[in-house]
Amino acid sequence: MNPSLPKQVQIVEVGPRDGLQNEPTAIPTEVKVAFIERLVQAGLTQVEVSSFVHPWAVPQLADAEEVLRGVPRAAGVTYSALVPNQKGFERALLAGIKRIAVFTGATDSFTRKNINMSVEESLETFRPIVREAAAKGVTVRGYLSVCFVCPYEGEVPKARVRELTERLLELGVNQVAISDTLGAAAPSDIQETLGMVLKAVPPDLLALHLHDTYGTALANVYAGLQLGIETFDASAGGLGGCPYAPGASGNLATEDFVYMMNRMGIETGVDLAKLAEASNLVAGALGRELPSRNWRRLQGATGK
Amino acid sequence: MNPSLPKQVQIVEVGPRDGLQNEPTAIPTEVKVAFIERLVQAGLTQVEVSSFVHPWAVPQLADAEEVLRGVPRAAGVTYSALVPNQKGFERALLAGIKRIAVFTGATDSFTRKNINMSVEESLETFRPIVREAAAKGVTVRGYLSVCFVCPYEGEVPKARVRELTERLLELGVNQVAISDTLGAAAPSDIQETLGMVLKAVPPDLLALHLHDTYGTALANVYAGLQLGIETFDASAGGLGGCPYAPGASGNLATEDFVYMMNRMGIETGVDLAKLAEASNLVAGALGRELPSRNWRRLQGATGK
Repeated sequence: MNPSLPKQVQIVEVGPRDGLQNEPTAIPTEVKVAFIERLVQAGLTQVEVSSFVHPWAVPQLADAEEVLRGVPRAAGVTYSALVPNQKGFERALLAGIKRIAVFTGATDSFTRKNINMSVEESLETFRPIVREAAAKGVTVRGYLSVCFVCPYEGEVPKARVRELTERLLELGVNQVAISDTLGAAAPSDIQETLGMVLKAVPPDLLALHLHDTYGTALANVYAGLQLGIETFDASAGGLGGCPYAPGASGNLATEDFVYMMNRMGIETGVDLAKLAEASNLVAGALGRELPSRNWRRLQGATGK
Repeated sequence: MNPSLPKQVQIVEVGPRDGLQNEPTAIPTEVKVAFIERLVQAGLTQVEVSSFVHPWAVPQLADAEEVLRGVPRAAGVTYSALVPNQKGFERALLAGIKRIAVFTGATDSFTRKNINMSVEESLETFRPIVREAAAKGVTVRGYLSVCFVCPYEGEVPKARVRELTERLLELGVNQVAISDTLGAAAPSDIQETLGMVLKAVPPDLLALHLHDTYGTALANVYAGLQLGIETFDASAGGLGGCPYAPGASGNLATEDFVYMMNRMGIETGVDLAKLAEASNLVAGALGRELPSRNWRRLQGATGK
């Protein structure tokens, strides 16, 4: 194996949040809890379980408190939740969260459409939240969306991604998830944009958050590994696609990521068969197939 | 862009042969001809159109002669066909073929199951064919199957792949398609096995023939590009999967390959939208969706 590749990687499982927030079908709270329980049994240790966004905005995740109450406390397992503003942060604290995620984007247009703030306004909104979180022993990760292509502004300048990554770290987040929100990036994008960010920021402060819309997610993972990235977001079954668009695919599927890492001899700590069983629960509740190639293969193999 | 990556790549379109030979639905000859015509209109210049295998063995391709008669003669376009033995070679010559492909594997078990010969026997069978082809101005490519994982023998020794690649070239083939027949390889496999082959053989004598069963095909393409490979086999729409296995995926989809090359600024000469229209013809005839992410995306976009 290439000696410069990491021997082990971290997975941030975002299926329960980034995956389910895009599903039109409401999943009962007890199914979500059982899903998360099985994800943990499969070996996942970092799970983003929900979002403390206003229930009117994302009704799919209106049960954030109940989900957090239900999930098993297990040694070495960290649950996080997305927090869009002060109000959400207060809910998250009351729910006893130990890790939150804040969300901004590399373009104003995208950030306005998503959280109704400019990028600058979002950073100012997060400043007191991150400060208070630190005082309360809550760690913070920051999502930086549309780091490569923006649906409104097109190609995103690499220097802007670097600048915003540095500013998020200055605010006090301890990890920035460089996100290919459209799933449009190719390995050359990873090499160029991440390469520029890495001139200013060490790789252990970064995660890659990939979508697989165009089938390039695992190629981008490989490009990221070669640059020293060791933390990858992934979504069980590849949840996160829009089921109305035929064939639209969601986040990088955790199963596909784990398959490739297993084959490359890179440790994830995750049991692929148990992971696929966790995804089965959600596939059953949604009543549809999930996009992950490896989840489908495992379904075929077990005759389910 | 990484200066060491090629500026342009060659695609060997194998959908009409490797794709359709696995489909249980018979495609009418005129649809195959129209499919190939559109592939050429989309910019593909190397198309493997059929196989001169015994019609009883692969009834889907029993019309090899008719297909070759029907396809458009176009400057700069090369049609090839698979030739399993002397009888098939004679049929191919009568049909006026200018390029043939021979097929063996890196393990005896796989090669016996597929062509009922040991690897040694297959090389001896090809020796006079390749010699006669050269005398008649017909060029030959050689498929070397199961270069990474064999369904019967498991992990395939890298040294065996290197040895057989060299022996195929010694026989007189002018290109060896290093094939991940199961689609099980990861970039580390490409790096290790291809890396060993490249110690003995220059990259311009090699092609990578990838399947996307586990979703790793484009990651493997990226690993191949980094090693200097400039020829990749691909199948329009991702044809080649077994439609009986849910979600089973076929060859690397030409659309997915072209998308990633476009995004990386690597020239293919292929128009992605026209390519997807070519695939539409086959999807219509098969009455099913094709696995390519980008084909599906283009279907969604055009509302077809």
